[in-house]
Amino acid sequence: MDLTNLHSLSASDAAQLIRESVISSQQLVEACLARIREIDGQVQAWAHLDPDHALVQARASDEYRLTGKPTGPLHGVPVGIKDIFDTADMPTEDGSVLHAGRTPSRDAAVVSRLRAAGAVIMGKTVTTEFAYFAPGKTRNPHNPEHTPGGSSSGSAAAVAAEMVPLALGSQTNGSTIRPAAYCGVIGYKPTHGLISRHGAFALSRTLDHVGLFARTIDDIALLAEQLVGYDEYDPDTHPRARIPFIDVAAQEPPVPPMFAFIKTPMWERADDDTKEGFAEIVEQMGSQVEEVELFPSATLRLSSGQAEAWQWHQTIMAAEMAANLEREWEKGRDRLSEKLREQIERGREVRAVDYQRALRHITPIHESLLELFEQRYDAILTPAAPGAAPKGLASTGDPSFCTLWTLCGMPCISLPFLQSTNGLPIGVQLVGPRHVDARLLRTARWLAAKMAES
Amino acid sequence: MDLTNLHSLSASDAAQLIRESVISSQQLVEACLARIREIDGQVQAWAHLDPDHALVQARASDEYRLTGKPTGPLHGVPVGIKDIFDTADMPTEDGSVLHAGRTPSRDAAVVSRLRAAGAVIMGKTVTTEFAYFAPGKTRNPHNPEHTPGGSSSGSAAAVAAEMVPLALGSQTNGSTIRPAAYCGVIGYKPTHGLISRHGAFALSRTLDHVGLFARTIDDIALLAEQLVGYDEYDPDTHPRARIPFIDVAAQEPPVPPMFAFIKTPMWERADDDTKEGFAEIVEQMGSQVEEVELFPSATLRLSSGQAEAWQWHQTIMAAEMAANLEREWEKGRDRLSEKLREQIERGREVRAVDYQRALRHITPIHESLLELFEQRYDAILTPAAPGAAPKGLASTGDPSFCTLWTLCGMPCISLPFLQSTNGLPIGVQLVGPRHVDARLLRTARWLAAKMAES
Repeated sequence: MDLTNLHSLSASDAAQLIRESVISSQQLVEACLARIREIDGQVQAWAHLDPDHALVQARASDEYRLTGKPTGPLHGVPVGIKDIFDTADMPTEDGSVLHAGRTPSRDAAVVSRLRAAGAVIMGKTVTTEFAYFAPGKTRNPHNPEHTPGGSSSGSAAAVAAEMVPLALGSQTNGSTIRPAAYCGVIGYKPTHGLISRHGAFALSRTLDHVGLFARTIDDIALLAEQLVGYDEYDPDTHPRARIPFIDVAAQEPPVPPMFAFIKTPMWERADDDTKEGFAEIVEQMGSQVEEVELFPSATLRLSSGQAEAWQWHQTIMAAEMAANLEREWEKGRDRLSEKLREQIERGREVRAVDYQRALRHITPIHESLLELFEQRYDAILTPAAPGAAPKGLASTGDPSFCTLWTLCGMPCISLPFLQSTNGLPIGVQLVGPRHVDARLLRTARWLAAKMAES
Repeated sequence: MDLTNLHSLSASDAAQLIRESVISSQQLVEACLARIREIDGQVQAWAHLDPDHALVQARASDEYRLTGKPTGPLHGVPVGIKDIFDTADMPTEDGSVLHAGRTPSRDAAVVSRLRAAGAVIMGKTVTTEFAYFAPGKTRNPHNPEHTPGGSSSGSAAAVAAEMVPLALGSQTNGSTIRPAAYCGVIGYKPTHGLISRHGAFALSRTLDHVGLFARTIDDIALLAEQLVGYDEYDPDTHPRARIPFIDVAAQEPPVPPMFAFIKTPMWERADDDTKEGFAEIVEQMGSQVEEVELFPSATLRLSSGQAEAWQWHQTIMAAEMAANLEREWEKGRDRLSEKLREQIERGREVRAVDYQRALRHITPIHESLLELFEQRYDAILTPAAPGAAPKGLASTGDPSFCTLWTLCGMPCISLPFLQSTNGLPIGVQLVGPRHVDARLLRTARWLAAKMAES
């Protein structure tokens, strides 16, 4: 373990070293702040960062630990928070001038849970405007001329650039998986309703998910275990037995997992690097992977070029965004980006019958996908994005390889196993059935070991 | 106990007598069938009734009981089922010519539960067209020139006329409480999501409830205890601890309950009999009742004459009906009643943003009502309908005294404590907070005893 570069530590290692009094939280946070000073001028991952306030929290956790009282699993570990999650001690501006200077009086549910686990809330990371498409200032740490992806741009970039070991984002279409892939870190979008969204800016109750960023699968499991749980203020969470993410993710699968390689109707968008990379993975994995056609049944056949599930996602997202952003649209639509304004205008025209029809398709699609898992496969293997991060900062890239899984509320993880010819990371996405999240992490770890063999 | 009129027995008494081998299910069902032959020519409560099939079930339960195997709490007791609940052994026509001859292959969840409890499924009771407003053939047992109310017309009338001790209905606005009040029986609409609606014709996921009819509070508790429970096929039901309806309903309240007499913005619709009746009840109950103004807070103030909550209910009901009845509207709109066609046409025009806005008001309204219960009151006391059953069979009456509680998913019970000057029953409605159903029955029993004192 390299103690000269504390900012490079994983959260699991850092938490252990703090627990064992090898390092202090203050040392860790100082190292991360130094890293931020060194590199954030170029990356610009942070919307709000007060180094003194972070250090105050770090020193307080060190003092607390010295009392001998029990500490949480993230005691003293800094975490970046996408600036759509309310924080009682920092502004939360949602990436929009309309919310400039907004200072919530309460923490979002996930922020409360992180504090309860002992984490240091490092600062707020850059989000696109209201977690939709209009980019913030963040650049890709691998090449500042390329987008970091979005909407969780700052969280992905901050973890990739080793400014923090962990960060929170969100995903309504591809806002966690895509930036994780573009920035070369691990992104995990859990099953819909596992993690409370209370206190987060809401785009779409049906589609919004909390997203997690880390550099190791262990860290994703560690973070997930702190965040999952029932919250009476998020009507899509439900009381359920604790999920032992850390233990399950660390296990060896009893038999080698089987993967369903699914190109999806979006495959034509995949670039050559991605296509070649997946061909290599498929070859390397041999009998553990099989290519599977999506929606072979007649009832769910997608009309040529028209992927209906993607349309249903758009109908739901537009209609729910129009409802959630009604106040912003009424009071300040001229201060919204053109893309967002157009989306809201589309959403305002959606009829309730069409909205409900789109909602009704979710369960049947998920059920048709469930058959895959029940019959034979442990995870779907599919690209996280059409390719590496595109050049330019005017767009955050294409979420279409995430849309279907987000619509169905299925757990997804992006793993940085591939590289483009220009040296940028390319993400491999694994998707599991709803509520089989911990096992998906176990499967991801198996795949990571398999990839490392090559 | 009068064993010469078995059809008059309560379900609780009948079940006990069967358990104790004093009577057989066959005797009970024969008595009910005799009562139907005697009186149903006038009342016309049944959409489908096959006396032989009912007797086959009754004899089978008698034979089963003789084996000494354990029997369910409703063993051998006949129950009427509103003809919107699927039955595998009888047609289910939903009160519409469009569904004439429809024979489902499976039982609705409630029908399965009744069979598991040992009940004899007597037959299907008349519903209005698709449980909306267009009346069926049923007449009020107290006066055939008056409506029995709707949409659960046959169930209310069959229980009132002592053709069965128990029946199932549904309520999306006032479809259980209103016919119970008009027919002079007890109607109970449980908390939204307590009883599965799987296999029932769906008008509105947000507003649809299963409704219960009986002639005693004990019977309501007995029936409710068989029906409540999680069903994975009804997404609004949730796993929860068993509710001991029978035990709680039988208890004496530890202190005399307090009632909040609420006139609601609909009070001007109440007729003189109702106003006088409530004035007498309030006087009789003395310090146990206080008149409370609804929505005194500024945020929920209703504009004069315009009761917004009633509009939100209408927006949700119209939009969801338009989605649920899309196939009927597309294939056979000329075979729908004019009222239903107009409702669907209104619903098809509702925008998704307005629909979502209406949905969003439900929680705040319920929370503002919760304050009443938390501060001081055990139940809201309010009319079940503007008055007794109106004359004429072209309309099923006015549901407006039920709308608000249905919108909020609150448990309601209608009790036949009053009478109009023309001798027809008038219902007194008690309303409780969500999930306090069993205690609402206990409160209702206390009130029934108090009323009997006079």
